[in-house]
Amino acid sequence: MPHSLAAATFTATYRVRSTAAEIEARATAIAVEQSIEMPVVAVEDAWVRDTIIGRVEAITDPGQGLFEARIRFSADTVGADPGQLLNMLFGNSSIQDDVTLIDVDLPASLLSTFGGPHHGAAGLRQRVGAHGRALTASALKPQGLPTDQLAALAGRLAAGGLDYIKDDHGLADQSFSPFSARVPAIAKAVRAASLGTGRATRYLPSLSGTLDAMRHQLAIVRQEGVDCVLIAPMVTGVAAFHALVIEHPEIAFIAHPAMAGAARIAPPVHFGKLFRLFGADGVVYPNFGGRFSYSPDTCRAIVAAGAAPWGDLKAALAIPAGGMTAQRVPELLDFYGVDVMLLIGGGLLAAGKDLTAATARFVQAVESYRYA
Amino acid sequence: MPHSLAAATFTATYRVRSTAAEIEARATAIAVEQSIEMPVVAVEDAWVRDTIIGRVEAITDPGQGLFEARIRFSADTVGADPGQLLNMLFGNSSIQDDVTLIDVDLPASLLSTFGGPHHGAAGLRQRVGAHGRALTASALKPQGLPTDQLAALAGRLAAGGLDYIKDDHGLADQSFSPFSARVPAIAKAVRAASLGTGRATRYLPSLSGTLDAMRHQLAIVRQEGVDCVLIAPMVTGVAAFHALVIEHPEIAFIAHPAMAGAARIAPPVHFGKLFRLFGADGVVYPNFGGRFSYSPDTCRAIVAAGAAPWGDLKAALAIPAGGMTAQRVPELLDFYGVDVMLLIGGGLLAAGKDLTAATARFVQAVESYRYA
Repeated sequence: MPHSLAAATFTATYRVRSTAAEIEARATAIAVEQSIEMPVVAVEDAWVRDTIIGRVEAITDPGQGLFEARIRFSADTVGADPGQLLNMLFGNSSIQDDVTLIDVDLPASLLSTFGGPHHGAAGLRQRVGAHGRALTASALKPQGLPTDQLAALAGRLAAGGLDYIKDDHGLADQSFSPFSARVPAIAKAVRAASLGTGRATRYLPSLSGTLDAMRHQLAIVRQEGVDCVLIAPMVTGVAAFHALVIEHPEIAFIAHPAMAGAARIAPPVHFGKLFRLFGADGVVYPNFGGRFSYSPDTCRAIVAAGAAPWGDLKAALAIPAGGMTAQRVPELLDFYGVDVMLLIGGGLLAAGKDLTAATARFVQAVESYRYA
Repeated sequence: MPHSLAAATFTATYRVRSTAAEIEARATAIAVEQSIEMPVVAVEDAWVRDTIIGRVEAITDPGQGLFEARIRFSADTVGADPGQLLNMLFGNSSIQDDVTLIDVDLPASLLSTFGGPHHGAAGLRQRVGAHGRALTASALKPQGLPTDQLAALAGRLAAGGLDYIKDDHGLADQSFSPFSARVPAIAKAVRAASLGTGRATRYLPSLSGTLDAMRHQLAIVRQEGVDCVLIAPMVTGVAAFHALVIEHPEIAFIAHPAMAGAARIAPPVHFGKLFRLFGADGVVYPNFGGRFSYSPDTCRAIVAAGAAPWGDLKAALAIPAGGMTAQRVPELLDFYGVDVMLLIGGGLLAAGKDLTAATARFVQAVESYRYA
């Protein structure tokens, strides 16, 4: 059999609700489900038996009927397709609602196959000339506004001195603000406001649709001199996301968690590892204490996973969001420190006519905070 | 404001864990989260307020602390992008783990925008000349086998007289059986065996990777005279899936549930409505009583959703799979009746040297069953 194939392997760790008596059989069943998906006794090929079938490496019992099983798989099963990596990690087991994917460990070969972010946290910081402080961001909404109103809003937010202004992830290519009209108008408004503030405020248009559609969108983005975008990999597909990252090495990509929440993949693995692996320079995720249910521990773990040394991969910047307010800036910076981008959308927009002033206060709060 | 836009709307129904005191506020919060995602009071535009913000239409209380909230949204928010429909239905709310998407109701405009299956259940039946009986299928695995062994396996399965033989969804474009070599070899083996049986057995290659990669794969598929494929829309992205359906109206598409299990979208909606809407002629899903946890009621609801009248959309054929055996054929046909494709993979492969005979017994059991 194909002796020439590399022997690289990866591991996935699953949390499984089980009894102590059954966990070994459960873990073995997951190893089979995620690899050959057929009765092991019926596998006649020795190489497949020795190399391709997932192998249970360790089972631990942290208690409360939730066991952790680490399973090793052949990297040859993945090839170079991000979708196939997801499929191997959790494709069928996602259908078993007592199984959660809680960790992933990849060999150097897969890390270099996918490559991670081109710019990373440091690149996002450099783009806006922000040093020794956290970064600031807001979002353009509501969807339904016509292009000129969104552009006016962007101008007022940029006048407040933000680092990044992103399209709401609900802004796709709708008739009320089509991408091809929206992006030039907003980019122009942000440029104009930046001249006034002297800041390098960046606009992040939201990509959507097929790979073709997103390539067309990126052509518009580049034409406008915009150098970063927002994308929701679990909506577009991770393969499309990764293809765009490879094709546009000069563009920074911020990953949005839409449709990722229900994946039963632990958020630190999903955002801090997988999205980073496929090329996210920054990862938006729901902050604790807002309208989503992530705990402070989960948020801390997302930050840690995105920043942890991982082969040659650049770090992905943590971008907590969702129901945040400018009043929480000191608390949030006490918690996150300097390596974070605080994204406040609705909390600023609620200021209405005072939007620019409210934004400036947010920026000021972040810049005047005494970082440890 | 844009009065010329169509006033079409769609509804999504969510199951929400809540108290009676809080459910109204929760439902309103979901309506806002899934539309404008900002404080309603800060929305200045009257058209957005009247048209774009999601509206809670009904809240029911089936009991046990689980409420059902039906919310109406503007179809203008979707445009023509399947990913954006998912995003509008469940993008951010997927991150709230006490919310499940349990139903979707779409206007004629969105039904015709997406269009549904080109062939549907009747087309899958017609392709193999199967009338008045259920259909039969099996799967090629394990991944890791070289192309010639997979082709030999396909030939032995086809010799048993199956209607459909699919690639395991784990077969991507790996070095041990690259798509460009695998598909011609397997197609040839199935054609040769079909000459012997006189049956129109069809081979379903599994698509994977980016839209570009899948287009390239479909070119190979067509070159080989193969007219149906397998695809996992939650791995590839629904937009890529739908684009391929539109580009290849002569190809039948069978949807695989990989990565769909954890989506917290009720399986009948996910497979019987959304996958069908985007073009699945048949939908593979985990059968009850196998190694997955779907109940008989869930399976019945998937079948019903795929077959229910829905605008001009063709019906999607139900394809239960996962841990099924030929011994269960009478029980399964008692349950499903004639409008089903029974997919037995590992249960046949376990027969080893007797694979063709075991397959023929499965086919015979399905054909000799007395359908009501």
